[in-house]
Amino acid sequence: MKKYLFTPGPVPVPEEILLEMARPIIHHRTAEFEKIFAEVREGLKYIFQTREEVFVLASSGTGAMEGAVANTLSRGDKALVIDGGKFGERWTKTCKAFGVEVQELKVEWGEAVDPKLIEDILKKDSLIRAVLMQASETSTGVMHPTKAIAAITRERDDVILVVDGITAVGVFPLPFDEWGIDVLVAGSQKAFMLPPGLSFSAMSQKAWKFSEKSNLPKFYFDFKRYLKDAKDNTTPWTPPVTLIIGLAAVLRNFKNEGLEKIHNRHAKLAQGTREGIKAMGLELYAKRSPSTALTAAMSPEGIGAGKIISGLRDRFGMTVAGGQDQAKGKIFRISHMGFIDRADIIAVISAIECVLRDLGYKFDFGSGSKKASEILGTE
Amino acid sequence: MKKYLFTPGPVPVPEEILLEMARPIIHHRTAEFEKIFAEVREGLKYIFQTREEVFVLASSGTGAMEGAVANTLSRGDKALVIDGGKFGERWTKTCKAFGVEVQELKVEWGEAVDPKLIEDILKKDSLIRAVLMQASETSTGVMHPTKAIAAITRERDDVILVVDGITAVGVFPLPFDEWGIDVLVAGSQKAFMLPPGLSFSAMSQKAWKFSEKSNLPKFYFDFKRYLKDAKDNTTPWTPPVTLIIGLAAVLRNFKNEGLEKIHNRHAKLAQGTREGIKAMGLELYAKRSPSTALTAAMSPEGIGAGKIISGLRDRFGMTVAGGQDQAKGKIFRISHMGFIDRADIIAVISAIECVLRDLGYKFDFGSGSKKASEILGTE
Repeated sequence: MKKYLFTPGPVPVPEEILLEMARPIIHHRTAEFEKIFAEVREGLKYIFQTREEVFVLASSGTGAMEGAVANTLSRGDKALVIDGGKFGERWTKTCKAFGVEVQELKVEWGEAVDPKLIEDILKKDSLIRAVLMQASETSTGVMHPTKAIAAITRERDDVILVVDGITAVGVFPLPFDEWGIDVLVAGSQKAFMLPPGLSFSAMSQKAWKFSEKSNLPKFYFDFKRYLKDAKDNTTPWTPPVTLIIGLAAVLRNFKNEGLEKIHNRHAKLAQGTREGIKAMGLELYAKRSPSTALTAAMSPEGIGAGKIISGLRDRFGMTVAGGQDQAKGKIFRISHMGFIDRADIIAVISAIECVLRDLGYKFDFGSGSKKASEILGTE
Repeated sequence: MKKYLFTPGPVPVPEEILLEMARPIIHHRTAEFEKIFAEVREGLKYIFQTREEVFVLASSGTGAMEGAVANTLSRGDKALVIDGGKFGERWTKTCKAFGVEVQELKVEWGEAVDPKLIEDILKKDSLIRAVLMQASETSTGVMHPTKAIAAITRERDDVILVVDGITAVGVFPLPFDEWGIDVLVAGSQKAFMLPPGLSFSAMSQKAWKFSEKSNLPKFYFDFKRYLKDAKDNTTPWTPPVTLIIGLAAVLRNFKNEGLEKIHNRHAKLAQGTREGIKAMGLELYAKRSPSTALTAAMSPEGIGAGKIISGLRDRFGMTVAGGQDQAKGKIFRISHMGFIDRADIIAVISAIECVLRDLGYKFDFGSGSKKASEILGTE
């Protein structure tokens, strides 16, 4: 059976990029590699919308999250973590592992944080040195209001904004310099439509000032080493050359497509998915501000999400993601990132209808795919 | 011009493995991936010669080195670092970054450490909690006597042996359980003949006891998380699925080849290289115990190594490595790891002869390749 991958990372990689990465290995201390890396640096700045350096790390996104904490904060510092899902929790765990004190701002799963709450907390507690958040919380399919939160933190010299943009960078606008984000992390296996294995991070000048005082231990993720070596178009440790060659090719495609079009592409796929899902009578898990990176749909009353997921897998070769932790069994998640186009979304919506019908769900069969086709039928 | 890669990492990857990694991406939380990961776990244990779990990390080898320190030691602990090259220095830097006190046992570059010195130091200083070393020091092409050093540390309950086996595991015998090594790290872009991007680490039961008391911060490299998830054939963070698929294929090949043959293959390529180099009148950089992972050759009096390296590159499309730091300009290094066979070594030795002759070096032209062919002409 043909396979279709709709998980919010890893995502499908274009065949041409897979083959690009299958070319013979080159050494990383050569003019050939340095030329590729120079191109990667420029391309990443374009996608991050920044003049700052964007570091290329050999790690999953979690490694870049650890680097964001370890490079800016100090033992005993206090951090405000916006925890509205599994990846919010990850900020807390990372901070605690490094001896950073955490104040959690719990947000109900499926809800977006209210920036006013953050402003109030920062006003009351002058000890907070950082706000850590997800621009897009992958476990719930919700976007948090990064712009509004950045407007609060950029007013303060003593608070930085650290954003997990792993399912956000390259998905929707998140202009690093313009909004005044201080640390932004991303990963290869999301909008960059590459295999997992690379993560990225940018730091603002304000974050670099924090870094001067930071006493948390770091070696592998020491961003100062990456900054120094980036100027010579190299990395401090042996880089995953094949993934970086793939990245250079992807970034070349992105430059041709243009950032605005890239963002619109994700927004359109998300809109088609959401409207298709709603047309068949299902509800979104996101109560507001659904992410354009992925759509989390609630399975109907009496039908476990696991059955929908296994039905899609067994009958159509389609892999969608389930819910994590408290959302397990309740939702299924469809990614809009990676090498996915309009017809793929129409196909998955249609397949969901077939599976739901045969699971006994009563609805107007065909309404979902009709709606998806209406929206996605034109570019 | 056809390209040939003779650097001690990255190394050439077999075409069939490159294409294996170019297959469509699969998700890492699926039965399909778990089956592959189960195979990888078994294969790594076979190569590491251990019953312990071998962790698969998304990082360069330096990340696994950091993990080795962060998971076993505590702030203020004292570590004895065998520093006989650039990677010995890296242990020192890693330890210092994490607040571990370092006593350096400096070994002249090109020399192997004398285990008696280690025994003497451990007898005199009961505060030392770990000996950190390279089984094969890539910057000098020297093997340190791991077996003899392990015989010293295994007698002591309060000292662990932490071995960088990045250019050793899968190259020459380093039986983890039998010798009593406590932490052993390796990397994908060496004997495993894969692209860079994965590193590996195993821990002994003694090292796990150290880990119980270890207070160094770790999150991304927290081996306890990897141990827990390995039992479910998964990793705590999104793994680089393409590299792991390649790894499974490589390990299948290794199982067929057999560990003894793999070690003999490297030893033979090393012997052919060394004897070829010596036959043309050049000296090895290793004064004793040359590594079977790579051969470091000294460039002749009056001829900078850079000229040999650029000659090989420009005239033959061959990339060999230069010297690092104090060995820069003095040596060139030829790897025996990766997808390299006997005829490749004969070819590079012959090419070196051509380049040297035209640089004005006086020697019996053809003597090197003749010697290499004598040794490498049969399996």
